[in-house]
Amino acid sequence: MQTMKTKVAIIGSGPAGLLLGQLLYKAGIEHVIVEQRSADYVASRIRAGILEQVSVDLLEQAGVDQNLKEKGLPHSGIEILTNGQKFRVDLSALTQGKQVTVYGQTEVTKDLMQAREQAGLCSFYESNDVQIHDFYNAPKVTFESNGTHYQIECDFIAGCDGYHGVCRASVPQDKIKTFEKVYPFGWLGVLADVPPVADELIYVQSERGFALCSMRSETRSRYYIQVPLTDHVENWSDDQFWEELKNRLDPESCEKLVTGPSIEKSIAPLRSFVTEPMRFGKLFLAGDAAHIVPPTGAKGLNLAASDIAYLSSALIEFYTQGSEQGIDQYSEKCLQRVWKAERFSWWMTHLLHRFETESEFDHKIKQAELSYILGSTAGQTTLAENYVGLPYEIKSLDYLKHAS
Amino acid sequence: MQTMKTKVAIIGSGPAGLLLGQLLYKAGIEHVIVEQRSADYVASRIRAGILEQVSVDLLEQAGVDQNLKEKGLPHSGIEILTNGQKFRVDLSALTQGKQVTVYGQTEVTKDLMQAREQAGLCSFYESNDVQIHDFYNAPKVTFESNGTHYQIECDFIAGCDGYHGVCRASVPQDKIKTFEKVYPFGWLGVLADVPPVADELIYVQSERGFALCSMRSETRSRYYIQVPLTDHVENWSDDQFWEELKNRLDPESCEKLVTGPSIEKSIAPLRSFVTEPMRFGKLFLAGDAAHIVPPTGAKGLNLAASDIAYLSSALIEFYTQGSEQGIDQYSEKCLQRVWKAERFSWWMTHLLHRFETESEFDHKIKQAELSYILGSTAGQTTLAENYVGLPYEIKSLDYLKHAS
Repeated sequence: MQTMKTKVAIIGSGPAGLLLGQLLYKAGIEHVIVEQRSADYVASRIRAGILEQVSVDLLEQAGVDQNLKEKGLPHSGIEILTNGQKFRVDLSALTQGKQVTVYGQTEVTKDLMQAREQAGLCSFYESNDVQIHDFYNAPKVTFESNGTHYQIECDFIAGCDGYHGVCRASVPQDKIKTFEKVYPFGWLGVLADVPPVADELIYVQSERGFALCSMRSETRSRYYIQVPLTDHVENWSDDQFWEELKNRLDPESCEKLVTGPSIEKSIAPLRSFVTEPMRFGKLFLAGDAAHIVPPTGAKGLNLAASDIAYLSSALIEFYTQGSEQGIDQYSEKCLQRVWKAERFSWWMTHLLHRFETESEFDHKIKQAELSYILGSTAGQTTLAENYVGLPYEIKSLDYLKHAS
Repeated sequence: MQTMKTKVAIIGSGPAGLLLGQLLYKAGIEHVIVEQRSADYVASRIRAGILEQVSVDLLEQAGVDQNLKEKGLPHSGIEILTNGQKFRVDLSALTQGKQVTVYGQTEVTKDLMQAREQAGLCSFYESNDVQIHDFYNAPKVTFESNGTHYQIECDFIAGCDGYHGVCRASVPQDKIKTFEKVYPFGWLGVLADVPPVADELIYVQSERGFALCSMRSETRSRYYIQVPLTDHVENWSDDQFWEELKNRLDPESCEKLVTGPSIEKSIAPLRSFVTEPMRFGKLFLAGDAAHIVPPTGAKGLNLAASDIAYLSSALIEFYTQGSEQGIDQYSEKCLQRVWKAERFSWWMTHLLHRFETESEFDHKIKQAELSYILGSTAGQTTLAENYVGLPYEIKSLDYLKHAS
């Protein structure tokens, strides 16, 4: 058994854990990352691809924005196709110039791993039997890696280990409350090395169900279609996928659509999930460990980033100023933003998907809502300001500049 | 059997029928009104009390705004009480100066009846066995009044006879489609001659359910509380009503609340209902005959007014210019506005009421939505612009000026 000491033990080396590590490093706060999977596995997971303005700002402050600035595609609007008509929501015009950036989560992860490697920071990959202990008093993390058993004594544990991780599961049941909604459909997604059908994302509401035309770069497209939860990816050949996508698009988009072999194809279920609170003594949950959103609003990665903004700010405040205020407010502040993003993600999902159970009245109400939202500047602005990301409730990110 | 001829036979002498009559009269278009009930009954029905800006404008154009201007109370904002905190939505500031006017539907009806009497226009009250015939070709209305049987031959029939009226019921089932939602609660309302608790309306969302502090004048208040649909008005003494209302209010409002004996007390169910289309040959449905909204957004009377704006405009266009365009577009134009008002009324109802069936997740999402809406200028504007009334899709109401 090898015993180590550090200030912050980060469980999970996804974008949340890596970003926290990078921000703590810049502030000179000692930490280690413990990850169950291999580095290759982590680096190759395919996930979301839209960054809010505030997430981009945070990555810039963390000093990992070089590739993002070079290769990311800033988008100032999105298209919504409903009733066969395309409508552009001018995100930038509606939010005083804010925009979103298309940049794959895979790329964000790689950039953060590279920065970590360059800085020579400590990560334990392929860690088995990760356990967290005594986090209301004297937190410890134990695990086995490469044949050695480790025990890390630390001031705080950051649970960045995702929905299935050990951190949330270690909290006594009477201390935690969860809220959940499962949707009766999934997204069948295809990644293909073909140019995107349009310069901006197209969100499609059709009688046959939802579709999304997204992208990872100018040569790599990501398309999704709503499928029943009972469907299987084996039922869908590439040709069948493209055919059904075309069924949901307008004639102009069908004509422009470039199809090609899928390089990844999978069905993801849609879920809304929130844990309250997000802090348990000296254990903090962040990102998917604490909350899941359906992907419709592209909020998953961005919520992880905002949790990390609050958490890094709280920890830096604690270590540099001795103040526990940020730590004490962490859960409440995060949850305010989390619930608003949950609301927005639920709303986008509700509005754009076809629900088998909805009555004709419900369906008409949804059509009226879309018609109202798209026909009103105020309505469009509610969509736009949520889509580009509500502002953090942090005075500024300058603390990071001063720290670095 | 006495036979008459006229251009437009209006069935129903509620505010929709009366307003249509007044506008046709000002345009010099011959018409009669046929009403099942007595004049006294019609004049004393207690209904809504909030007029949109556009409704006030329409009543002004109809020349029946003298009492409204004298006694109506213009309101430039509403209060929303949620989580024990009051929040003012500044309707006027958010909608370039628009406002709503507190003026009872009972008063609107009386003003219209008085104008009709002064003009010596023909109304048949207490009409029995009202029937409409052959409205796809040569419309006729038959009824019995005061012992005489009448047959009215006309160009058009305006079905302004409410949800339970004969007009919608006379449409062949295969020509009509209805959409409906019934809510699992009702509003217990009390009318009392006490000064209102506040200058503006207070919409209350509380753990015990919805409440509304409304008014008819500076000395007459109208209060409502959400009750189960299975409840009976006999179960509620005045004291019990005031007690439960206080349970849902904030301490400041409780202190200011003046209670007194109820002069009317009743439980109204909440329903959303829409008929498509709203025109069947030479029969037009207008107001409650075609659609019902739950009262939460105060849209019922206002929707009747906008139907009448479209219908009067169409009929005047037909008789003065020989154009059938307005008639042909009547249903579609009305329904666009109807569905948006249905959407808003559903949304206000959904957001502010406690539903027994809602999950904890649903409840949290509603709290997050309220918090977002009230914390965002765009969010508040969506509420405000719907509350004061979306604009009519009519170039202007000037046609009424020219006609008169």
